[in-house]
Amino acid sequence: MILATPSAPLVDRQAKPGGSVFSVGGVEIGGPEVIVFAGPCAVESEAQIIAAARAVKAGGARILRGGAFKPRTSPYSFQGLKDEGLGLLVLARAETGLPVVTEVMDARHLEKVVACADILQIGSRNMQNFTLLEEVGQCRTPVLLKRGMSATLAEYIHAAEHVMRGGNERVILCERGIRTFEPSTRNTLDLNAVPMLKRLTHLPVIVDPSHGTGLAWMVPRLACAAIAAGADGLLIEVHGDPSSALSDGEQALTFDQFARMMPEAAAVAAAVGRRIGAVIDMDLRGTERAS
Amino acid sequence: MILATPSAPLVDRQAKPGGSVFSVGGVEIGGPEVIVFAGPCAVESEAQIIAAARAVKAGGARILRGGAFKPRTSPYSFQGLKDEGLGLLVLARAETGLPVVTEVMDARHLEKVVACADILQIGSRNMQNFTLLEEVGQCRTPVLLKRGMSATLAEYIHAAEHVMRGGNERVILCERGIRTFEPSTRNTLDLNAVPMLKRLTHLPVIVDPSHGTGLAWMVPRLACAAIAAGADGLLIEVHGDPSSALSDGEQALTFDQFARMMPEAAAVAAAVGRRIGAVIDMDLRGTERAS
Amino acid sequence: MILATPSAPLVDRQAKPGGSVFSVGGVEIGGPEVIVFAGPCAVESEAQIIAAARAVKAGGARILRGGAFKPRTSPYSFQGLKDEGLGLLVLARAETGLPVVTEVMDARHLEKVVACADILQIGSRNMQNFTLLEEVGQCRTPVLLKRGMSATLAEYIHAAEHVMRGGNERVILCERGIRTFEPSTRNTLDLNAVPMLKRLTHLPVIVDPSHGTGLAWMVPRLACAAIAAGADGLLIEVHGDPSSALSDGEQALTFDQFARMMPEAAAVAAAVGRRIGAVIDMDLRGTERAS
Amino acid sequence: MILATPSAPLVDRQAKPGGSVFSVGGVEIGGPEVIVFAGPCAVESEAQIIAAARAVKAGGARILRGGAFKPRTSPYSFQGLKDEGLGLLVLARAETGLPVVTEVMDARHLEKVVACADILQIGSRNMQNFTLLEEVGQCRTPVLLKRGMSATLAEYIHAAEHVMRGGNERVILCERGIRTFEPSTRNTLDLNAVPMLKRLTHLPVIVDPSHGTGLAWMVPRLACAAIAAGADGLLIEVHGDPSSALSDGEQALTFDQFARMMPEAAAVAAAVGRRIGAVIDMDLRGTERAS
Repeated sequence: MILATPSAPLVDRQAKPGGSVFSVGGVEIGGPEVIVFAGPCAVESEAQIIAAARAVKAGGARILRGGAFKPRTSPYSFQGLKDEGLGLLVLARAETGLPVVTEVMDARHLEKVVACADILQIGSRNMQNFTLLEEVGQCRTPVLLKRGMSATLAEYIHAAEHVMRGGNERVILCERGIRTFEPSTRNTLDLNAVPMLKRLTHLPVIVDPSHGTGLAWMVPRLACAAIAAGADGLLIEVHGDPSSALSDGEQALTFDQFARMMPEAAAVAAAVGRRIGAVIDMDLRGTERAS
Repeated sequence: MILATPSAPLVDRQAKPGGSVFSVGGVEIGGPEVIVFAGPCAVESEAQIIAAARAVKAGGARILRGGAFKPRTSPYSFQGLKDEGLGLLVLARAETGLPVVTEVMDARHLEKVVACADILQIGSRNMQNFTLLEEVGQCRTPVLLKRGMSATLAEYIHAAEHVMRGGNERVILCERGIRTFEPSTRNTLDLNAVPMLKRLTHLPVIVDPSHGTGLAWMVPRLACAAIAAGADGLLIEVHGDPSSALSDGEQALTFDQFARMMPEAAAVAAAVGRRIGAVIDMDLRGTERAS
Repeated sequence: MILATPSAPLVDRQAKPGGSVFSVGGVEIGGPEVIVFAGPCAVESEAQIIAAARAVKAGGARILRGGAFKPRTSPYSFQGLKDEGLGLLVLARAETGLPVVTEVMDARHLEKVVACADILQIGSRNMQNFTLLEEVGQCRTPVLLKRGMSATLAEYIHAAEHVMRGGNERVILCERGIRTFEPSTRNTLDLNAVPMLKRLTHLPVIVDPSHGTGLAWMVPRLACAAIAAGADGLLIEVHGDPSSALSDGEQALTFDQFARMMPEAAAVAAAVGRRIGAVIDMDLRGTERAS
Repeated sequence: MILATPSAPLVDRQAKPGGSVFSVGGVEIGGPEVIVFAGPCAVESEAQIIAAARAVKAGGARILRGGAFKPRTSPYSFQGLKDEGLGLLVLARAETGLPVVTEVMDARHLEKVVACADILQIGSRNMQNFTLLEEVGQCRTPVLLKRGMSATLAEYIHAAEHVMRGGNERVILCERGIRTFEPSTRNTLDLNAVPMLKRLTHLPVIVDPSHGTGLAWMVPRLACAAIAAGADGLLIEVHGDPSSALSDGEQALTFDQFARMMPEAAAVAAAVGRRIGAVIDMDLRGTERAS
């Protein structure tokens, strides 16, 4: 029941008892606001990503997510638009002002991903790809490090230490479901991990209920649960037409479902003494309309 | 990703699309109120259970929990006060008016447990003790059926069907953490199970964050998360002096911790359109004081 | 990596460094011979169990297995022939001379099961049904205690301690596969458990590759592996017509498959310095034919 | 229970019903001989690797293993001798004639690892490092692809497909234990995987009982079990002084333990119709001595 964290001194809570708070493109992560990262699993076309970026911004998301390089179990599945996808993310950011998070799978792509992304995502399958961790540790772009599918929290914390040791202090942790015997959901979302990671480390901790459940209808409930458990943010898959998505359509919310989820999430955030973009966006939208 | 529930017709949601709501000693389970079941793991003495019953009632609990017969991994651990424990639960109910839930481990004890308990608990280790399930199915006392440590939801649903087939329609389901590879918590609380069980069955679903985490400091956060996920109730271990508890002290809240948790839980309940005992109790306590 | 076995003094290896060896109906369990327990999952009819008993005896099995009381996930599945099944097992024993092992699920059936069985099986789902463990601990009939689906070895050892504390010293352990994330086999057979249980306890350890794989074609390979890992016996499901079996047909060997497996198993046993019934039976059959 | 292998046409058994057999430095992998890969976890010094290479050759190993680049959970653990380690492996090969397998963790090291290694190892943590899989797929050096810690067999098969799609047809699969709830062993060795992988694919399948158990005393028993289950080879950690090893000392055999294990393994191999280096080496050593 004990984690040997003294061996990960850089991420250890004791190194920063008040917790890490840092700003990405004007969005403060780790502070009182629960930050919503939302967007499609993969960038599929200009129309798709622009529409999604607008919809998630309207709903209250602060960061746009979208995959250009996609790790896929089968080599015959859609592997992402790659360079073209990066370009479309830049376009979507220009259009909406939302900072962008996208996955980097290969150290050799790092330069071009860094040129386009505001946050570098390390996917679950690469949580212990130590050479990649070291490379992103050399960057000054913040890193969203997803928990491995069967990584213990001790291993996860050490993976973050690999990144921080390179000098990159802006690491975001993300619980995204673990592999268990239960077949009715894609993964088992481990919300125990949220308070445990916040106690053991000083890093912001977000939750991905899309991968954590694999089922769109279940996402809003687990998103609210994650906030109540103390999460600093959410990572939500949203797609204009999930039934035609090139990957993970089963777990993506439609624009409407996302819009309906956000006020619920905001209410739960308020109940635990935090706030969420939706509330503020309502004001902002009011202001915009007024101006 | 699909559960073969047509094979469990009695618990299937389709049998009662609006969901089961039933009353136990005046407490409505499955309705808009999130019901808190609280008390010590084991009944240890008259003083201990009376104090705990008063404390949890004051905090807003609706049902008193306490074990008289304790299933223990080692035959040399404290096995509960047995018959004496049942008597003390009756005393605590008389003192506080709280209905009582306690575990039955053996069909041969059933008659005396039924005589004392308002709800019969079937523990995780007995989730597939089919003879016991059939016996409690013959009773008319409501049953709190805990999920087995590594039971799939399909198996769990079928275990409930075993009970209902005997004619006992008042079954409460309880997610209490599953066994995974993660060692930092006692179990992994599977909150995905809450919306899934509510979609697949019409039964009330409660959550036990005490066993689900094994760590008292983490219980309030996961209790709030469970409510946000849609739970109809909570099962919380509370002890006057956890450090001296004869079992499970590591996961028991003190009276103070419980009292502090309840308003937080009530706020989250309100955020998701429900209410919790604490709020109402405040009024009641006012009335009592006035009279 | 350490098991707290001093807390299970009766099963601890130190209590009997040479290991427990005991005789059941003339069959020595825990000795140099690898003992094969074989037969159908469930007793279905006189013709079925007699044919199976003859076939497994001819193949070299020493103990006949067959379920009369069947624990089933669904209450609507075949639950066994119950009392009638017990009678048919007695008949099959009379016909073949093979001692019989059958499951007892309910303490109230114990008297009649003891009257018919040479070994009492406690199934995986009842590994922590402590009242049942205590009851069979009071008996003097040997007990085959199967490992729970997700029981740690420490929990398993303590379950055996529950039985032995009642005074019943003849307990046989059985690894039968554990629950993991892997979906292509019914369970994951944990052969690490064999040397670990033999090091930590003095009890005979057998392996059930039928439940451990769930796939008949795979059984012979894992049966051989179990012997090489040091198992003292095998528990094998064999059925005259698996495709029409009322339970677990997918994992049952036909008579022919069983007959073909046994010489392979015997060769592996010889390679690790042991022997298996098959070899001796060949001689015996020769003798019988000659007489 | 069914794996969608038609989607991995290159590794599918149907593509080569007789199974893949290929030669590495004169050692035939996938043929009747069970091939033993042995050596230390990490190359630590010239003296250490040369001594280990001689010892494992004398014991009957056919391939020398040794890590130069070590993936480690903590960034503060020994990370391997890197380039120097590669040089020492070349030396050990020159000294003993044993082909060498070593891990490649980073596509940017590939050229130099290929220059030194006879077989490229992809470690468990990189099983779904798809860019690395594609890179080694471009090579013509055989690949030893270890199963991920919680990879399903379907995912594992697809990872092999990623390699083969690049044109590299010489892929060796390796079961090395999976992550489960059981804490008494480092991993749970999944020997069900051996017959399943051999049925679904045409690739050679070896087993690593060192990682699969994490305990040196248990390795010989599981090595024998792996052979009985049908493994085409073994991967065994051997170290001149395990107590001073810089990594994984708990699971390494001493030279003596390795030498004692090999005749047992050879006997089991013979029992299942195969042979193992030990037997032949005895002859060869005779021949060599004679010449």
